[in-house]
Amino acid sequence: MRRILYSYFRSSASYRVRIALHYKNLDFEYAPIHLLNNGGEQNSDQFKKLNPMGQVPCLIEDDVVIGQSLAIFQYLDAKYPNLPLIPKDPLQAARTWEICEIINSGVQPLINLSVLGHLKSEFGASDENKISWSKHFIEKGFKSLEAMLSKSSDTYCVGNSVTAADMCLVPQVFSGARNNVDINDYPKLNSIWKACEKVEAFQKAHPKNQPDFVG
Amino acid sequence: MRRILYSYFRSSASYRVRIALHYKNLDFEYAPIHLLNNGGEQNSDQFKKLNPMGQVPCLIEDDVVIGQSLAIFQYLDAKYPNLPLIPKDPLQAARTWEICEIINSGVQPLINLSVLGHLKSEFGASDENKISWSKHFIEKGFKSLEAMLSKSSDTYCVGNSVTAADMCLVPQVFSGARNNVDINDYPKLNSIWKACEKVEAFQKAHPKNQPDFVG
Repeated sequence: MRRILYSYFRSSASYRVRIALHYKNLDFEYAPIHLLNNGGEQNSDQFKKLNPMGQVPCLIEDDVVIGQSLAIFQYLDAKYPNLPLIPKDPLQAARTWEICEIINSGVQPLINLSVLGHLKSEFGASDENKISWSKHFIEKGFKSLEAMLSKSSDTYCVGNSVTAADMCLVPQVFSGARNNVDINDYPKLNSIWKACEKVEAFQKAHPKNQPDFVG
Repeated sequence: MRRILYSYFRSSASYRVRIALHYKNLDFEYAPIHLLNNGGEQNSDQFKKLNPMGQVPCLIEDDVVIGQSLAIFQYLDAKYPNLPLIPKDPLQAARTWEICEIINSGVQPLINLSVLGHLKSEFGASDENKISWSKHFIEKGFKSLEAMLSKSSDTYCVGNSVTAADMCLVPQVFSGARNNVDINDYPKLNSIWKACEKVEAFQKAHPKNQPDFVG
């Protein structure tokens, strides 16, 4: 079986799926899609035939094609239940998913490259405006997560095992740092982030360890 | 057991959860949160204690509190497996989730009231600018969905039973109409939307049938 991940080293949604695949010890071919070169390789007709949204990540397993990072999480857990990304307990699963969505729908869509590009074309947003815009939404998300999680003594976002929630948080911390958001301002998130950074799957999935990394 | 849904009649994420609750025949008290009055009731300290993101929907079951519409879907399916929102088959589940996320993370976050408000405060966006901005992202999502779904002969988004994907699509069609997006331009989505509108749960959940509706 041929498994391919279309990914861009810096894309936080791709980063999430890389963590999940490494966590489940699932080998994959890495197919880099450069989101800036040639008007964005994700916008090519060839790639849009595969994924009409023109976004990474996109996972291929033979003739199965799945876009959207959290849909890929669902698929991986259903097909490869060992080392679950989402806890079995309904309440823990809901909490995991809630944290994922605060990042996946509450933060990341607002700061991705295509939205920032649209801000520039519609409103003439400068690079400084874009960072300030991104910082606003990342901080809103992090403040909410810190409020939700600060009373817990768990090592990770939900309990003492890694879940999908951590796989969303860590790439957002990386993206936050590029937008002047200091994770030290969020003690509980910082502690979870540090715990995750010790886990091999998170290390392997880090942008700097990808074949298309540019420093 | 006391089940409460914090909702705003026009919020598309609230509308999704209303459909799901009616579909599963789960009774609930309707707690209206007006997103505009008094600076937005979702921003009150009282509500933010419940849901730090300050967003609707938010579901309460006794001492369980869950924000984020898709997390609520997960919870309802785990706790009340009858009449599933997400199919059991891994590939169908992934496809359902992918469609949900194209709307939930690819469209809706970009056009919600707080983001449009931020566009105004940061870039002086006019009402016309806001509609044009919203239309752009709704059309991007609908074009992708139409490309994904147009080859299928299924009645609904995934197969011939209602799924969570339809519960995301229908509220987005409602929101599209308010932003000059004509569903007739998307024949497959239009056909799915019309099929859903015949289902009682979708009718009960419609904004016009909520206690806080204002025409």
